[in-house]
Order: sequence, then C-alpha cells, then structure tokens
Amino acid sequence: MTDGEATVGETGEFGLIRELAARLPQGGDILLGPGDDAAVLRAPDGRVVATTDMLVERRDFRRDWSSAHDIGRKSAAQNLADVAAMGARPTALLVGLAIPADLPLAWVLELADGIRAECDLVGASVVGGDVSRADVVTIAITALGSLDGVEPVRRGGARLGDIVGLSGRLGWSAAGLAVLSRGFRSPRVLVEAHRRPDPPYAAGPEAARLGATALIDVSDGLVADLGHVAAASGVGIAVRSDAFDVPAPMRDAGSALGVDPLQWVLAGGEDHAFAATFPAGTVLPEGWRVIGEVVDGEGVLVDGAPWEGPGGHVHFG
Amino acid sequence: MTDGEATVGETGEFGLIRELAARLPQGGDILLGPGDDAAVLRAPDGRVVATTDMLVERRDFRRDWSSAHDIGRKSAAQNLADVAAMGARPTALLVGLAIPADLPLAWVLELADGIRAECDLVGASVVGGDVSRADVVTIAITALGSLDGVEPVRRGGARLGDIVGLSGRLGWSAAGLAVLSRGFRSPRVLVEAHRRPDPPYAAGPEAARLGATALIDVSDGLVADLGHVAAASGVGIAVRSDAFDVPAPMRDAGSALGVDPLQWVLAGGEDHAFAATFPAGTVLPEGWRVIGEVVDGEGVLVDGAPWEGPGGHVHFG
Repeated sequence: MTDGEATVGETGEFGLIRELAARLPQGGDILLGPGDDAAVLRAPDGRVVATTDMLVERRDFRRDWSSAHDIGRKSAAQNLADVAAMGARPTALLVGLAIPADLPLAWVLELADGIRAECDLVGASVVGGDVSRADVVTIAITALGSLDGVEPVRRGGARLGDIVGLSGRLGWSAAGLAVLSRGFRSPRVLVEAHRRPDPPYAAGPEAARLGATALIDVSDGLVADLGHVAAASGVGIAVRSDAFDVPAPMRDAGSALGVDPLQWVLAGGEDHAFAATFPAGTVLPEGWRVIGEVVDGEGVLVDGAPWEGPGGHVHFG
Repeated sequence: MTDGEATVGETGEFGLIRELAARLPQGGDILLGPGDDAAVLRAPDGRVVATTDMLVERRDFRRDWSSAHDIGRKSAAQNLADVAAMGARPTALLVGLAIPADLPLAWVLELADGIRAECDLVGASVVGGDVSRADVVTIAITALGSLDGVEPVRRGGARLGDIVGLSGRLGWSAAGLAVLSRGFRSPRVLVEAHRRPDPPYAAGPEAARLGATALIDVSDGLVADLGHVAAASGVGIAVRSDAFDVPAPMRDAGSALGVDPLQWVLAGGEDHAFAATFPAGTVLPEGWRVIGEVVDGEGVLVDGAPWEGPGGHVHFG
C-alpha cells in the first residue's frame, strides 16, 4: 500500500507525527523544533505575541469545497494575520489536529504542506503539534510572533481626527462563499479568494512603524471590526463607500446572485485585510488606501449613516 | 433566565468571551491579555517554550465521568507539565474551545475556573482563546513558558551510567480509569487522580538546575516515555520494580479487578510525573526517587528483562 492510499489510522499516531515533522523545516528563530515535550524559540526583544484559532469541519470549512492544501493555507493565514495585526512578525505556529481514523494520510500531508506554504510567506515555522481522533476534522492553530522592538498596536488607540487606512482585499471571500453556496464554481478568482485569503502580512509591522494608533485584522467584516476599534477607542469611525474598489468579477457575481456587492465589501469576513488608524497627515505608502476618518460619536458610519446592511460573523446566533 | 440555566447558544460568542475573560486575571508576565488580535507576554531571557495538546470529548474525557472543573484542570495540567518537562516555568495558556450550542453556559464557566485553578498553581495566565461550534466538546490548549536562563532539558541527553530519577505519582490515573471503566466509583483517591492529575511542576525546573541530562513528562506511561528517552539518547534504561510504591488503594483495586497494579505503575499514562536522568552521584532532593540507571543497549528493561506488559497510549491503533 502506498502512502497515497493509506489512512491515518493505518499509519498510527507516531508514524503520522514523523511524516508531518519531516515536512516542516525549522527557521532561524527556532532553537528546538518538534519532537520533545515542547519547542523553544527566540523572542528577540524579550516579548512574544500569541494568538489562537479553532476551525471545525462543516462549520468553518468544507472538504468538498476546499482542498486540504487550501484549508491548511487558510487556517495558517488567519492566525498569522492576527499576529501581524499587532504590528508583529509571525515566527511560529503550533498545530493541533483532531481527525477521523479513516482520513487519507495524503489529505493530512497536503494540509501540512498548505500550512507550511503559508508560513513560508512570512518566514514562520511549525514548531509543534498534537494529533488526536475525532469524527470531524478539527484544526487548532496557535501563532507566535516577535515585535522586534516596536510597541504592539492595539484596537483602543484611535483618536479623533485620525485617518482610517486599509491594506488588502475586502469582500472577495464573502463573494466566493456566496457563489459556492449557490452551487456555482465561478467567477473563479472569487472562489479561490474564499478558499485561500491573501493577507498583506507586511502591512502589519509597516503600520506599526508608520505610527498607527489602532490596528485590526479584518476577519469578521469591515464594519464589525471597525466597530471593535470604535468601541475600544471610545470614538466613531466614518467610512466612505466610494473609497472601495468593487472589481468586475464581484460586480458580475452581484448581478448574477442579486446581491449589492458593497455588502460583501463592508460586511464580508475572512479576507484578512488590515484596517488601521493613523494621525491626520500620515502619508500612507503603496498598498494602503484612505477609507475614512475617526469622528466624534460611536459606532461605524457609512457615507454618514449607520450601516443598515448585514453584520459580520455570529457563531452562536 | 439565570446564567446557570443559559446555554452558550443563548449567550452568544461575544457574550461568552466576555464572561470568560472576566474570570481570567492576568499575572505579572502578561503585557497584554485577551481582547485584541493577539496577546503579548514577557519572555525574560529572550526565549519562549511552547507546546500544544488537543482533547476531544469521549476520546480524551467524558462529561459523565468528570466535572467541567476537573476537565479544565486536567487539560491545563497536561500542557503545563509539558512546559515544566523542558525545565521551564509555565507563564501562559491559550485555549481553543469548540462546543455545542446547547452546552450550559455554567459548564463552560466551570471549565474556565478549572483551567484557571491549575494555572494558579504555577502562576500562569490564560492570555487568549477562541470559541467555535462543534457537536462534541473539543479543547485545544497551548502552553508557553520561560526558561529563566537555564538550558532546556531534552530527551536525548541521557548518558551511560546516569541515574534515573522520578518525581510524582505513577499508575494512579490508569487505576482510576480502570475502576471507572468497570462501573465503580471507588477507591475514590484513584478516581480523583484520574480526573485530576497532580504534576509536581516545580520538579521540572529543579531537575534542570540539578544538571539533568534528560527530562520527560510521563504522559504515555513510564516504560513508553523512558523508551522515548532511550531512543533519543541512543542508550538503554534499566528500572527496578522494587523502586516503586504500590499504595494500598491501588493494591485493593488490583485485587478487585484482577490486575497486577505494577502494570498501572509502569504503563499507565496521564499522571504527569517527571522522569529524568542525572549524572551518577547526583544527590536528588526530597520528592525524587532513584528508579534505575542508564545502561548500554536499547529500550527499557524492567528488573533486567524487556517489559512484556501492555504499552502506553496508542491513538490510532
């Protein structure tokens, strides 16, 4: 029997862990990688940034809609983006997997390859993990990072008069999900954006160096996540809808599905763009656009009015 | 409706996260706790130790056998013990939870209280987490720690002639599990040891300071875990069965169930004792006992012969 046909049950826990560890090279920040009771990594400035997320099959991903490689990339991306959204450089992931015994070994190895491919974009390493059994695939990822001497950029520092900047795509993942949910597979760029986000990781530390007063990973939708910044900062945030591109495939999908694509842009989650506030007058480099400003009041205004469209993700609604 | 009757579905994701964060005070190592994209904590000597584990309901715990508080303590303990088994001091946990919407809120809050109670034993804080939905309760914990200037003690450093030391209980959890599996609830001390391990956390850093050449958390069973040390070090390990206490309740349970209690001591997992090798002549302080020595050869010998009893945990066997 070849690896490609074997199940994880046939391979066994220790065999699986050996196969996985062999696919996960260790970068320069790692002093001790997988294989002992715990890993050891560098925290160059004496601080470490840490965040965790959990993805459950059928709730957070579907194996019939996404390849194992894409699920690996997306699981890694959402954690790496959270580290970058503090202004930090991601250094390491730890990955917990609970999987059915009849899952093909090849699926798990592709998942690991996807996680590694996403880590390679930022120079992070998978330094540890755990494998357990469950009836549905469950992926728990913890990401660690280094601030390299900068102060973490929190959600609560936005000040009256600040400009609001955005780096990255918005609405692409939600549009792709809408397309898949109606049984379509195109426009392909949207479907692929849903399967695999493209966070502008470097924009996180860049925002910190530019003096960002607040910074957030847009995972729940722009209005929802700017709402977190507004609430934590005790301010209002006003955005202009004409600041956003609605690319042609999204307009096409909106027409086909009878949806205003601006809803995807303003309320769609999982693109992992970065939204930040900066002191007025800050010149934002390429990759950033100004989408609004910090105002007196509370909540998020779109074109001067409270957003009446759908909100972001709600897990137990 | 009171909190005690509410479900997590009724409370909602953000409400649940607020309730949890309010129960989790932040200790001195924590620069930024839960509530932002990621936490920030101190890594005083410029290094951080990291490990992760996943627990799945019905595979790794049963809600009808253990209280939420005990499941919280045990989940935390097995991760904190892995940090200590590098010779490090645990500083922080991140906790991913996937739970059914109809789970009582009170259950989750008790779980959090249990996690916190175990963290309090070592001065660690829960600095972050994530909540998702699943049909069975799934708990993913990552533990971080500080080496405080000592070198990490790995599995592969045992040398010919070293003595083998043990700190902590062995066999108690396996005996308790055997009792529960036969439908009994006593001897109570064994059942409670299964529900809630009692790792001698301070023994980890103590072993490092004493010059331990190898150190491991006994989670899979003594023979299995010493086997990992032997394999990683390229040596054999000989233990003497008369070095172990078989306490009266374990003898009683063995008689009642027709099991040689030495099997629990040598092969039972989940007690989270620490086994270490030290240079010959090292005087071990209170709490440690010498159980054998490092010999030429490979694998683990018990009273001079290869162990023929049951092995440790096998997840996909």
